Amino acid sequence: MTHPVSLDTLNTLDREGFIAALDGIFEHAPWVAEAAFAHAPFATVSALHEALMACVWARPEAERIAFVAAHPDLAGKAARAGDIAPASVSEQAGLGLDRLSDAEFARFERLNAAYRARFGFPFVICVRRQTRDALLDAFEARLLHKRDEELAAALVEIGHITALRLVERVTGPGLPNVHGRLSTHVLDTHRGGPAQGVRVELYEVGASARALLTEAVTNADGRTDAPLISGAPLRAGRYELLFHVGAYFAARGLDVPGPAFLDTVPLRFGIAEPEGHYHVPLVVTPWSYSTYRGS
Amino acid sequence: MTHPVSLDTLNTLDREGFIAALDGIFEHAPWVAEAAFAHAPFATVSALHEALMACVWARPEAERIAFVAAHPDLAGKAARAGDIAPASVSEQAGLGLDRLSDAEFARFERLNAAYRARFGFPFVICVRRQTRDALLDAFEARLLHKRDEELAAALVEIGHITALRLVERVTGPGLPNVHGRLSTHVLDTHRGGPAQGVRVELYEVGASARALLTEAVTNADGRTDAPLISGAPLRAGRYELLFHVGAYFAARGLDVPGPAFLDTVPLRFGIAEPEGHYHVPLVVTPWSYSTYRGS
Amino acid sequence: MTHPVSLDTLNTLDREGFIAALDGIFEHAPWVAEAAFAHAPFATVSALHEALMACVWARPEAERIAFVAAHPDLAGKAARAGDIAPASVSEQAGLGLDRLSDAEFARFERLNAAYRARFGFPFVICVRRQTRDALLDAFEARLLHKRDEELAAALVEIGHITALRLVERVTGPGLPNVHGRLSTHVLDTHRGGPAQGVRVELYEVGASARALLTEAVTNADGRTDAPLISGAPLRAGRYELLFHVGAYFAARGLDVPGPAFLDTVPLRFGIAEPEGHYHVPLVVTPWSYSTYRGS
Amino acid sequence: MTHPVSLDTLNTLDREGFIAALDGIFEHAPWVAEAAFAHAPFATVSALHEALMACVWARPEAERIAFVAAHPDLAGKAARAGDIAPASVSEQAGLGLDRLSDAEFARFERLNAAYRARFGFPFVICVRRQTRDALLDAFEARLLHKRDEELAAALVEIGHITALRLVERVTGPGLPNVHGRLSTHVLDTHRGGPAQGVRVELYEVGASARALLTEAVTNADGRTDAPLISGAPLRAGRYELLFHVGAYFAARGLDVPGPAFLDTVPLRFGIAEPEGHYHVPLVVTPWSYSTYRGS
Repeated sequence: MTHPVSLDTLNTLDREGFIAALDGIFEHAPWVAEAAFAHAPFATVSALHEALMACVWARPEAERIAFVAAHPDLAGKAARAGDIAPASVSEQAGLGLDRLSDAEFARFERLNAAYRARFGFPFVICVRRQTRDALLDAFEARLLHKRDEELAAALVEIGHITALRLVERVTGPGLPNVHGRLSTHVLDTHRGGPAQGVRVELYEVGASARALLTEAVTNADGRTDAPLISGAPLRAGRYELLFHVGAYFAARGLDVPGPAFLDTVPLRFGIAEPEGHYHVPLVVTPWSYSTYRGS
Repeated sequence: MTHPVSLDTLNTLDREGFIAALDGIFEHAPWVAEAAFAHAPFATVSALHEALMACVWARPEAERIAFVAAHPDLAGKAARAGDIAPASVSEQAGLGLDRLSDAEFARFERLNAAYRARFGFPFVICVRRQTRDALLDAFEARLLHKRDEELAAALVEIGHITALRLVERVTGPGLPNVHGRLSTHVLDTHRGGPAQGVRVELYEVGASARALLTEAVTNADGRTDAPLISGAPLRAGRYELLFHVGAYFAARGLDVPGPAFLDTVPLRFGIAEPEGHYHVPLVVTPWSYSTYRGS
Repeated sequence: MTHPVSLDTLNTLDREGFIAALDGIFEHAPWVAEAAFAHAPFATVSALHEALMACVWARPEAERIAFVAAHPDLAGKAARAGDIAPASVSEQAGLGLDRLSDAEFARFERLNAAYRARFGFPFVICVRRQTRDALLDAFEARLLHKRDEELAAALVEIGHITALRLVERVTGPGLPNVHGRLSTHVLDTHRGGPAQGVRVELYEVGASARALLTEAVTNADGRTDAPLISGAPLRAGRYELLFHVGAYFAARGLDVPGPAFLDTVPLRFGIAEPEGHYHVPLVVTPWSYSTYRGS
Repeated sequence: MTHPVSLDTLNTLDREGFIAALDGIFEHAPWVAEAAFAHAPFATVSALHEALMACVWARPEAERIAFVAAHPDLAGKAARAGDIAPASVSEQAGLGLDRLSDAEFARFERLNAAYRARFGFPFVICVRRQTRDALLDAFEARLLHKRDEELAAALVEIGHITALRLVERVTGPGLPNVHGRLSTHVLDTHRGGPAQGVRVELYEVGASARALLTEAVTNADGRTDAPLISGAPLRAGRYELLFHVGAYFAARGLDVPGPAFLDTVPLRFGIAEPEGHYHVPLVVTPWSYSTYRGS
């Protein structure tokens, strides 16, 4: 893999070097970097990304379709055969699309075929912004769209895909906003202060399965030392935070008759903005709690 | 089964009739009714029950032990063989103790044997006040007690058992408080009124399983037409209310990007007072909720 | 004052008796009762009231205007001089409109004059549904309306006025819904139960003044023995509930360093629906509280 | 007034210079700095302050009493006559103790006289940590203490007074924690995000008066640009935050019938920890709100 290059360095490169430095960000389409080179130098990485995407949007419709058509199917035969861009390989693997059961593979094949038949180009989505459930929901929803809506949707998704690739390849000021953040905070309003020492688990809650993503223990400020998710897009989908407040209150010496009214408190919520900040606090006593989307 | 008799009628019966009318309430112990007969007439059904139990507590320790010892093992061989009082049969069946797997049966056999070995009488508990998980927790906790604590505990449980049997056999004023109540209420603080049409499910959340107990839809006052549980003890244990608020807000026409922040809201709580009133409301907007043990 | 008459009796009266029984409900307009008599008998008191109002609405515009014009000015010279219907006298007195300062009297005179000049009939409002602040706000807002809007508004207000008078004069089934209710409930989620013994004060919060309307102490269920307001319309306006929770928690023996975080908790809210049910609970610990419009 | 000196510089000074640099921090007691000089150099400003106070505590009781006795009466004749240390002048002025009415002056004179009569030294308190109400409450409470408790209390207060003076005179690492912080945050859970543009007022709520301390408008994150109070001790006392949420929701276009259920929301709370962080958020919809002591 290419080492990251600084925006300053990039701005000094000649056409060949510039294209080489951005190789692979736009799949099978070195012409995008070539076209954007005319607009160098770039003040920010965001400006570079916008210039690259503007070169795509500026093409006539037939070329935009051809550009989209060069993308691989999701979880398709090409992916199984290893015949897609290296970045795509790891992105699809992140969602386990390289490890589908035969039944799941068949479902993707059916969806891919239906989509191609309807629109004439493959279904493109930024998989790093999706859980598998959300991706399948989006796939089925988009099958009902009109063709020009879908061509635009594919380009918007390619914008997300390439922005994520770009921030891993080019360092410098003004990075595009591609990362979300999920955080929590436990306030003990029985005692009137942060709840320290509460074990918190974060699960992805899928249509058919449930996966532990991370766990942490709250610190003296009632927060986890690091956000539960950061440095990546939040995958659209459904989640559950599980707070072990029964153990916390028992450790504080509160003597309630068992089974305690509150033991593990689940907060189940959906994420729809992968680049958003979701702060999901728990305000709790042994007999009550509340939560809200905070900031 | 004997038909219910009114307290007024009971108060007019002679000794024989009185003992016959209360047959089976105290297992294999007609002498309890016989002793209580001396205190007739009774102003309330509670007073009758207290008189019956007082006759038990008044006996010397050896007789109290013999009295407890006449009770069957929980989920034991006698129950399997059909050799216990009819009331016990249906009470144990209510918790599925007549349908245990071989492994579960073996676990109860081990616990029963350990308890009998330690205390010299069987483990007695009012099964109608327990979930299976709570019953097993109580069983293991009580194995650690002292002998006189356990003798007292057994009589307290027999008090619960016989009170429940009594209210089904004797009608009249001043019934003992043997029934609990679980209710809910959904307030929509986005709109400023009760949330009508919210589907609510109530689950028992066991150590290894999860069982749907009941479901309902909130009415114009945001409540269910009947309490979720009433007319019976609340079984001590862990529960979950699941509120389908995503569908409710969508039906109200609130347009939030999917996946919605709140879709199904679980409230997980423990019940420790089988005769208590647990009111567990949900105060909710599309972006927040709170709950508490209300009244 | 006429004694209440039952709807059954009213239904048996002849025309003269019927008109006499309803005398004074519609000010200076016995023809309303006379017209409604044709529709007797009435199944409910509501049906009677609807019939009476329908006879008013059915008149040609000129007669409706004349009907409205027969009403006295609010806090006007006629009221000062005692020259208005007895029911109007006590209704206006309820809001203190008979005890205005000279400056206030002058303000009403100006508003009355401006209203009459603009619309040709006096400003009519059901004063029993208003605080003085809300009444003045409504007066100024309605001065900006169109004439036909105001004629309709006057009749709607006369509907409220006469419904209130009617339920005091006619007993029977199906009373019009003319009364509101304000209630509260204090839940202590530090302890997990109703808060008993909390002193609660209810104030009207006026533009320039603040009046204690009632006070109460919560009972074992955390409620006041009677609703804070019932059996009357809730006057539209602004209110404050003041809960003495500091004294309550201190009495429970909770030792917090002084000044306590929470001592007296004010909940300030507006009432816009005089016939509504406003339930305004307080869910409180020594370190937190919440409220909402409940039901 | 002396210019601030850095801890590094202070550590290099000779005895004379050291004493001069700290002149006035301990009232009429240059011997404190002189004694502490033996422990120089100091790694942190806190360590310096602890060393100074340790020199005071180490003195025999009679000297500690003489030391306390050298402090001026609160709001006393000396203060009126200008005959106290310059730092004391401005500290007492901050609470308006130089502008008392004759009645208030007389009350302080009575309290001062009673205190001196009982303990033999003046009442010492760090006025910068008190509202006037809290100060008077503390005065009356401490009059009931025992003499050795009061001597200790006076030294603790002198610790607070001198720490506050020290951080204004010596710069460097490890400053003593003498400042508190009061902040707020408005979350709109009707919309699911921070509430921007809410006007917030902070009042001190005194026994007989109410003073606006500051006001602010929430920013895009629902917070005020700066904490409501910081860079100073929070004066112990009672406060009220007033949130203009009615105007906020109206500006958002939410159409509720007037008077709105929520217009101005008061949160009234006490501060007992002058060096604490009080975060008092408002989580609000047009029909509900909650608050808690956060962190």
